[in-house]
Amino acid sequence: MDRTDCLAADGADPLARSRASFALPEGVLYLDGNSLGALQPAVASRLHQLIEHEWGNGLIRSWNDAGWAELPVRVARRLAPIIGADPDELAVTDSTSTNLFKALAAARALRADRDVLLTDDANFPTDLYVARGLAELVGDLQVRVVPSAELLEHLDDRVAVLSLTHVDYRTGRIHDPVTMTTAAHAVGAVTVWDLSHSAGALDVDLHAWGADLAVGCTYKYLNGGPGSPAYLYVARRWHEEATNPIAGWFGHARPFDFDPDYVPAAGAARFLNGTAPVLSMAALETALEVWEGVARAEVAAKCASLTATFIAAVDATCGDRVEVVTPRDPARRGAQVSLRHPHAYALTRALMARGVIGDHRPPDLLRFGFSPLYVRHVEVWDAALHLAELLTTGAWDRPEFHARRTVP
Amino acid sequence: MDRTDCLAADGADPLARSRASFALPEGVLYLDGNSLGALQPAVASRLHQLIEHEWGNGLIRSWNDAGWAELPVRVARRLAPIIGADPDELAVTDSTSTNLFKALAAARALRADRDVLLTDDANFPTDLYVARGLAELVGDLQVRVVPSAELLEHLDDRVAVLSLTHVDYRTGRIHDPVTMTTAAHAVGAVTVWDLSHSAGALDVDLHAWGADLAVGCTYKYLNGGPGSPAYLYVARRWHEEATNPIAGWFGHARPFDFDPDYVPAAGAARFLNGTAPVLSMAALETALEVWEGVARAEVAAKCASLTATFIAAVDATCGDRVEVVTPRDPARRGAQVSLRHPHAYALTRALMARGVIGDHRPPDLLRFGFSPLYVRHVEVWDAALHLAELLTTGAWDRPEFHARRTVP
Repeated sequence: MDRTDCLAADGADPLARSRASFALPEGVLYLDGNSLGALQPAVASRLHQLIEHEWGNGLIRSWNDAGWAELPVRVARRLAPIIGADPDELAVTDSTSTNLFKALAAARALRADRDVLLTDDANFPTDLYVARGLAELVGDLQVRVVPSAELLEHLDDRVAVLSLTHVDYRTGRIHDPVTMTTAAHAVGAVTVWDLSHSAGALDVDLHAWGADLAVGCTYKYLNGGPGSPAYLYVARRWHEEATNPIAGWFGHARPFDFDPDYVPAAGAARFLNGTAPVLSMAALETALEVWEGVARAEVAAKCASLTATFIAAVDATCGDRVEVVTPRDPARRGAQVSLRHPHAYALTRALMARGVIGDHRPPDLLRFGFSPLYVRHVEVWDAALHLAELLTTGAWDRPEFHARRTVP
Repeated sequence: MDRTDCLAADGADPLARSRASFALPEGVLYLDGNSLGALQPAVASRLHQLIEHEWGNGLIRSWNDAGWAELPVRVARRLAPIIGADPDELAVTDSTSTNLFKALAAARALRADRDVLLTDDANFPTDLYVARGLAELVGDLQVRVVPSAELLEHLDDRVAVLSLTHVDYRTGRIHDPVTMTTAAHAVGAVTVWDLSHSAGALDVDLHAWGADLAVGCTYKYLNGGPGSPAYLYVARRWHEEATNPIAGWFGHARPFDFDPDYVPAAGAARFLNGTAPVLSMAALETALEVWEGVARAEVAAKCASLTATFIAAVDATCGDRVEVVTPRDPARRGAQVSLRHPHAYALTRALMARGVIGDHRPPDLLRFGFSPLYVRHVEVWDAALHLAELLTTGAWDRPEFHARRTVP
């Protein structure tokens, strides 16, 4: 494989047209769409219109006239096909952390006679914090954290909830969602999936998985903008039983009746909560337009191809000066590749100075994400060459690249 | 009192200069800043720069280079003097509903041996929903909802938490915060105030109140924009003991260490949660600039003067065709005036058609809010004249004004 093959792959890419929807800065190879997705000019235009016209001139009238009140429903309609859900199974609201809290609490309430929440030590730290915070609050729940490989043997009839993140944020390793969901159901447990690192990059099909509840963010592969609202999925079979522990007014069946009694909305909409951040919701609505007509299988194939290209390029150019920690089997990895190096931080910073943007995960990982709608094979190839050159010349070993910043 | 007096009051208004910071549409008398504050051109400019430059070009680098990671701290610094708090007593994050959930749970945990959360039936419906949702989740807590006038007699040694909204969203009546806080402390209860309808309009002085915890929104009198982030206050004396039940990673002492164990940040920052909605946080940061050098007492005096002007104008021009339900004693009301009329909805809509924007609260209230930084006495006077004219002519009684919309 060489650069010419990459150009050919880009020429044959059915998703190549979507690149034109994004505004990427000159001179940048952006391999961090798994942390923050890129801006689309259409999103900028929508926001300008919202700020000047809907907020500035419409003021409070825009809740009706500009349809702000229906934003969660409209966004759910666009998001649903990307993750294999129906629109009324989704509440677009809050942060991923808050939604995870709500989903874990709701899942546990569906199995109130059980006292264990099972998860793995590879889970995203927040997911562990939130689970333990819930356990401390409710008192009669314990969080069992085990190595990923031992999850199945810890699934027993005390387990109320199995909480897993689909893609490991460090290594890119995926849990097989059907295997894990089936095993959880076999012992009567309810599953809560965190899709933050997979929605918009893999063939996430919640219906096919038999998923119960799920959460995820929208600022990574879904390009909703920094801190854009997250979502919560509730499978239709739980719609009657599942309860939202944070009963903000937008989850009420008729929020604008100002009813003193809480009557939950039908479907997943009962997991809405406080007033939505309208700016971010509108940005997300427009950001999701580009997914119209994009098949999940196409997305997954593109990501598998981009990650394979990067691994091949790193193998070819960097040799054993870095360790590929991401599974080499594309069926076992997400849309990211992580490389181990003792000076991963300085290397990440040195790459950034060359316009190759990935990120660092402590202590020793360089992490690169491959957003399917705007990353090209040739960029992936070139990024690997930059890394190889830095490793060869040692040009990463300068004080300014070692200097620590707030966000690594 | 007549229109000339209003012009004179505006001429003598020490806050008159702040009007120039706001972009209000032509032909509009905006008396709904208590629902959604007006746009400032500086906020629009900040957002444009953030979208195009920081998101579009900076991408993930902006978490460091544009200081996104420090936004909650910077916003807290600007918000603190407006409510009589210190910056490290504030977490700017989430919606008011989520913050209320966190604050109520934290307050109750400070009095774990008690089993009652006391509130009044005039509280904002969400506040009741959230309290009951928490009670249902934790199991050993009951919510006691009583008429406002009976609160003091229901304060006993079973009460863990007294949860009140400072200003009644319907009538504008205020609870006396010092009386209520002192009474709560006398029986060993912890207070949680909802300041949504008072911060930025009244002399809210949390230190002087002896407040324990508080929450509030920023899209009303603080002009942060639709759905802008809310805040949570924790008095310094509770900083060591208070725990956040939703332990999202931004409340960790070192979120970017990806520590598997949760170590809460110092001060109120432990009540931060998931990734902040950066657009809305940045909008809020800029929106709060206008408060620099504005004294709380000045704000309260302006609001008292505006509401008094409106009541006088309504008395003079509408007579007994509407009932003023807001207390006539300025010490007992917030920055709003509510009028009762059996056709309040149609009247609100008919006023809106004339560019007089207030809102309707079911079943029979017209509600007008008087935002101190941009509402003029003469506008208040003119709004009352419009209402009087509608009542005299009956021009409000048209099908289009009776037609119901999503948000009343």
